[in-house]
Amino acid sequence: MDSNRIIIFDTTLRDGEQSPGASLNVSEKVEIAHQLARMKVDVIEAGFPISSPAQFEAVRRIAAEVDTTIAGLSRANEKDIKAAADALHPAPKKRIHTFSSTSDFHILGKFGHDRYGKSLSEKRNTIIKMSYDSVKYAKTFVDDVEFSAEDAGRTDLSYLAEVIEAAIEAGATTVNIPDTTGYTFPSEFGKKIAELKKRVKNIDKAVISVHCHDDLGLAVANSLAGIENGARQIECTVNGIGERAGNASLEEIVMALRVRKDLVEYYTDILTTEIYNSSKMVSAFTGIVVQRNKAIVGDNAFSHESGIHQDGVLKNRDTYEIMTPESVGISKNKIVLGRHSGRHGLKARLEYLGYKLSEEELDNVYEAFTELADKKKEVFDDDLRVLMGDEVHKTDEVFELEYLQVQSGSSSIPNAVVKIKSGEEMYEEAAIGDGPVDAVFNAIDKALNINSEVESYQVRSVTSGREALGEVLIRIRNGEKSFMGRGISTDIIEASAKSYLSALNKKERYLKENKDLNEKEDLSQAI
Amino acid sequence: MDSNRIIIFDTTLRDGEQSPGASLNVSEKVEIAHQLARMKVDVIEAGFPISSPAQFEAVRRIAAEVDTTIAGLSRANEKDIKAAADALHPAPKKRIHTFSSTSDFHILGKFGHDRYGKSLSEKRNTIIKMSYDSVKYAKTFVDDVEFSAEDAGRTDLSYLAEVIEAAIEAGATTVNIPDTTGYTFPSEFGKKIAELKKRVKNIDKAVISVHCHDDLGLAVANSLAGIENGARQIECTVNGIGERAGNASLEEIVMALRVRKDLVEYYTDILTTEIYNSSKMVSAFTGIVVQRNKAIVGDNAFSHESGIHQDGVLKNRDTYEIMTPESVGISKNKIVLGRHSGRHGLKARLEYLGYKLSEEELDNVYEAFTELADKKKEVFDDDLRVLMGDEVHKTDEVFELEYLQVQSGSSSIPNAVVKIKSGEEMYEEAAIGDGPVDAVFNAIDKALNINSEVESYQVRSVTSGREALGEVLIRIRNGEKSFMGRGISTDIIEASAKSYLSALNKKERYLKENKDLNEKEDLSQAI
Repeated sequence: MDSNRIIIFDTTLRDGEQSPGASLNVSEKVEIAHQLARMKVDVIEAGFPISSPAQFEAVRRIAAEVDTTIAGLSRANEKDIKAAADALHPAPKKRIHTFSSTSDFHILGKFGHDRYGKSLSEKRNTIIKMSYDSVKYAKTFVDDVEFSAEDAGRTDLSYLAEVIEAAIEAGATTVNIPDTTGYTFPSEFGKKIAELKKRVKNIDKAVISVHCHDDLGLAVANSLAGIENGARQIECTVNGIGERAGNASLEEIVMALRVRKDLVEYYTDILTTEIYNSSKMVSAFTGIVVQRNKAIVGDNAFSHESGIHQDGVLKNRDTYEIMTPESVGISKNKIVLGRHSGRHGLKARLEYLGYKLSEEELDNVYEAFTELADKKKEVFDDDLRVLMGDEVHKTDEVFELEYLQVQSGSSSIPNAVVKIKSGEEMYEEAAIGDGPVDAVFNAIDKALNINSEVESYQVRSVTSGREALGEVLIRIRNGEKSFMGRGISTDIIEASAKSYLSALNKKERYLKENKDLNEKEDLSQAI
Repeated sequence: MDSNRIIIFDTTLRDGEQSPGASLNVSEKVEIAHQLARMKVDVIEAGFPISSPAQFEAVRRIAAEVDTTIAGLSRANEKDIKAAADALHPAPKKRIHTFSSTSDFHILGKFGHDRYGKSLSEKRNTIIKMSYDSVKYAKTFVDDVEFSAEDAGRTDLSYLAEVIEAAIEAGATTVNIPDTTGYTFPSEFGKKIAELKKRVKNIDKAVISVHCHDDLGLAVANSLAGIENGARQIECTVNGIGERAGNASLEEIVMALRVRKDLVEYYTDILTTEIYNSSKMVSAFTGIVVQRNKAIVGDNAFSHESGIHQDGVLKNRDTYEIMTPESVGISKNKIVLGRHSGRHGLKARLEYLGYKLSEEELDNVYEAFTELADKKKEVFDDDLRVLMGDEVHKTDEVFELEYLQVQSGSSSIPNAVVKIKSGEEMYEEAAIGDGPVDAVFNAIDKALNINSEVESYQVRSVTSGREALGEVLIRIRNGEKSFMGRGISTDIIEASAKSYLSALNKKERYLKENKDLNEKEDLSQAI
């Protein structure tokens, strides 16, 4: 392998999907995986197969459909590894990714039981053996095995070197050094990688990978420090989503290497013009909005407010722009669709935006498109992206909105009437509320005889202009789990009603899928 | 001075306010300055006095009221410096901050005219002379003078050393090395600082400062690399807002130094428990929402979704938490106010949240509070923060909403009736729209005979629960400038109407304030 090429391992669908509130259905995951492949990521971590039937199915469908290396996560035990191997089976190129905890914090926190050894030192030996055995077992299914040492950022260096050496000895072809808690400084983390490269005897038999979290805002810098000291794989996510403050952001790492190719000799094969489409798709599907001042993909990343900046940019783009919007796929070429664009025009534009559709999916979105085009003269790319998020990947709708009527104002009590279809049944009710949205939620609750805790509620207008399409994102909580619902409409109240029902539908689906699972199991989804 | 203490120079009110769409009125700036002082930042850059009468007034009021070092920005000319000196006059501790462009990109882009010299080398000499003269002139007003070399990140090292040496020779007590375009890598930027420390003969007579932008996601890491190589002042903003992808985020730098005090000997005097209040206040006033996966202050920063994370956190907090929510001021102690809390209870809680109120301001907010408490049983801290953003700093309201009535639903045409008060006049109209919000905007437009371009529209529910307060943020565009309006209500449609009028009010105020300015002037607001 070319020693300056950096492997991009995308974990948007695994670590990214663990972001509180982000919850993707199988079709959405498959759609994102296709887009990641189009952007030419080298490895897609598609999920954690043992953790739920839906995770298993998502990994399996992606393995069957998407032609790049597909990885599945597993803890260091046979049951997990077998599930990962089964889910990955259809993939031409597949990787089992297994991990153990290695920091004292994690060993004591997660392997406290005496069965792992009585002293810390005994527990450490147990973990080395578990790691070795699990890599060996994974190798019976695939050649390509990655091993991660969870919380390596806080793991004692010489113990870490031992674990890594054992994993490579067992056949690991990639060894990953995660800064799981986002704790390290770049200089410190870089040194750790350099030391491992020096101390681990068989290190040349595996690719060193880094996986950095952003708790102190240093994930991208730590990843670059990893590269500068010998890492050749970066684990990252689109928009930097993930547990807590998230993972290293794919777009920032890729563009840093590209913009500064004068400085560093490392490069990736990422098709950077697909970055913007990927960012928009992930944001629409997960409901995790990117802040305006986010590097590369935020709304302000390429805009300039102050007099001199605007002036400077006009005179000479290089004054304040170190990269062009076009290089990340922000197009000036705004094709606008309308009433008469037709099915073919719609399909072509959606493909340009990164969406691969089955005929049935195209039918769904075409219907929604014509409805929208009736209301809006001009349908923009961003409208289409939201339509895709809302209309295409509907699954098992338990509840559907049949009718809605709302009144509100400064001298009346807000009130709403709803009719909801569920299978063959119809439910209808009226209610008042503090505002029209509250009235709608109350009416739905009364009709269905439920009472949900609304955790957050957001509305965005998707495009500029007077006839903007509104997207409502709502989160409801059910015990430990929260569910994101999404609704779109040019009518914000209708979008709110739809988003509430969408969250309820997700909750129903989750309860159905997980009713047989042992909820008490110690699920180690994270590194 | 203790050589390990890092000076925190906050530029939220200057560089932060240059974020496209963020626009703060004078009262909001004063409020934020008080909160920054409470958090114990060392220097507050309050604005750029020459750039507008409102900027001048904001700097002057902050200089008069807030007891910490106040800085004002100026280009390298006498007129700017005189304006900064005048605005800062009331401050017991004040700093004039002047800057020149030093990279070839900027010199050629902004000093292209022959009057600055015919060749690049002549222009460079002119800039050295301008820098020297402007620092000298600033010293006639104050002792504390900071000089910045704009785009130092892309400036040739030996020329940069010459400029800095000249500035110190003229009396600069702080020399700032901005990575204006967010271009450098930490290792490269650190080396630049180390080299300057070596090459600039009189460097020990000034404090080295760094000012990093986040275009490649490296602003915080570059700032830390600056410190590791001799910088002792960090320029940063709350929430990392600022031009394009923004500045280094204050909270990330401060918490990185604090969490890793085992690793680095540098420290700040920041009262970290005020970080959360500061973040919330800046977000509410600027309308720039923090993404959920933002480090330290994002909604997810301290929450854990996956099974093992929740489990790990429960068993042993240290497993996944490298700092506590309490350390940044996220309080578990949720005092809830209600109908009977009274004026005194409200005042005490607002002070706890960082708001210093005049009696008149307290009157305003108390009225809004009682109105809200009528609708909501429980008023949370976040409700109060939004009330503060909406109700307290109203200025010169040209338009006020008097009456609103809306109807919409799946089988009716959305329609709205509005009545608006402007001075002694009343304007009323009805209109239909694609949805109820569009209908309201159309009715307002018809009533006032205008037609505004709506650039973005967002709604957030501020608190959880069924009776959540909704906050609507809207941006309208007027030529090159956009205006942010804000409205709150438990009725989302009413909040939308208020936010639209608030944006129109801001536009009117801006046009009034700036009607005498020469709009064509080359305003160098940025470094």
